[in-house]
Amino acid sequence: MIATAAEARALFRSGTVAATSGWVPGKTQVNLIAVPAGWAYDMLLYAQRNPKPCPVLDVTDPGATGTILADDTDIRTDFPAYRVWRDGVLAEERTDVVDLWRDDMVAFLIGCSFTFEADLAAAGIPLRHNEQGRNVPMYVTTRQCRPAGRLHGPLVVSMRPIPADRVAEATALSARMPGVHGAPVHAGDPEELGIEDLDRPDFGDSVRPEPGDVPVFWACGVTPQSVVATMKPEFCITHYPGCMLVTDRKNSEFAIM
Amino acid sequence: MIATAAEARALFRSGTVAATSGWVPGKTQVNLIAVPAGWAYDMLLYAQRNPKPCPVLDVTDPGATGTILADDTDIRTDFPAYRVWRDGVLAEERTDVVDLWRDDMVAFLIGCSFTFEADLAAAGIPLRHNEQGRNVPMYVTTRQCRPAGRLHGPLVVSMRPIPADRVAEATALSARMPGVHGAPVHAGDPEELGIEDLDRPDFGDSVRPEPGDVPVFWACGVTPQSVVATMKPEFCITHYPGCMLVTDRKNSEFAIM
Repeated sequence: MIATAAEARALFRSGTVAATSGWVPGKTQVNLIAVPAGWAYDMLLYAQRNPKPCPVLDVTDPGATGTILADDTDIRTDFPAYRVWRDGVLAEERTDVVDLWRDDMVAFLIGCSFTFEADLAAAGIPLRHNEQGRNVPMYVTTRQCRPAGRLHGPLVVSMRPIPADRVAEATALSARMPGVHGAPVHAGDPEELGIEDLDRPDFGDSVRPEPGDVPVFWACGVTPQSVVATMKPEFCITHYPGCMLVTDRKNSEFAIM
Repeated sequence: MIATAAEARALFRSGTVAATSGWVPGKTQVNLIAVPAGWAYDMLLYAQRNPKPCPVLDVTDPGATGTILADDTDIRTDFPAYRVWRDGVLAEERTDVVDLWRDDMVAFLIGCSFTFEADLAAAGIPLRHNEQGRNVPMYVTTRQCRPAGRLHGPLVVSMRPIPADRVAEATALSARMPGVHGAPVHAGDPEELGIEDLDRPDFGDSVRPEPGDVPVFWACGVTPQSVVATMKPEFCITHYPGCMLVTDRKNSEFAIM
């Protein structure tokens, strides 16, 4: 039984792979995109201009492997799984990237909607993907982010089916946490976001709604990965969608009030 | 009588100088720091690492003179007054910087505590500096910001005397607005921030507390100006403290919920 964030990180460091939704309740999880220093300004500006999908919780100095978000962490090993991109193409998937980490790599650690899921669960709002043992479904939308330098690309969203009479409460609870995507960007008709089939997510797993559920969409930290395909940096490293770094920071640190 | 943000900007563009606290209630005001592009990454990272004093609401592209925060604005003319810094030293103060704007200038527009003052006033919380017709007092503290690249420096705070029984409410109302400095960083004893004499602010005017008032301190957008003295960039431009750009954005856009 994994009880602490440090235990979770140690397990993933030793090679275990798992989707981390629901792991170590109360501790904030983060997304990763690491780029060569020459791309760091564009990425940081992209995040500033698109704070809902890209709420940056830490940016490392070039070549560094730790983060203020967790003690004794190596960000090259402590995510469950990584994706390596070369010239904008997914080149390989790995459980660590120690030998690929360059002296000029700058890592962006981005807030994750799993953080506010704890508040939704505590309020008794059902989380269908957890009930069904699945990764949260994620979709590339037709909504474009605001460009920055060489970077442009579509908004990616995560979706949770929420009982219609709890949508307002789910909105209010997540809105209190702008550091982890904040309020939903959309509720209801997926076609307005250009999503044709909820059963076929671009990342993660499909999740079955219960009768009376409404699909609610939050901006997603996978959004920078969708940029990789358009920006085509010579090299970058991201986490595998749904497989996050479990930090030592409490969810409550990211709540307003 | 100035009723709109556009009218305020036109007045300042024509050369009028005034402290803007209380101007065009309901519209967000912003601080300025503009640096050559070679300093932009460090500044943006400094802001990311110090979001309470440096909540960035827009970053312009190099050489640009407009902002998404206001229509038909020229950020070289529409602040009431500017400070020009050369090699970290205050070189001159001006009412416009048109002829000084370089092709590589990147402007950071930073949220201002005047935005949440509207909410405090609406709740009936007295704002002593406005009652007394003064600029809000600002102080350089002994608390250090988190460094970024070549940038380091102390936190600057603004101070408002608040009746003791309204401090909680003032905290709650401002906490809802992380984009404009959010909750106070301190309430009570100024010495804990290294402020020796409240009557001698580093920027702005001294303000007389009423009996029963408590000094409450918020992180201040002048903080980047305190960095200028330590970073000594060859050139940069800031607003004159207290003399902000009045944008077209509603205060309510920056409130959570």
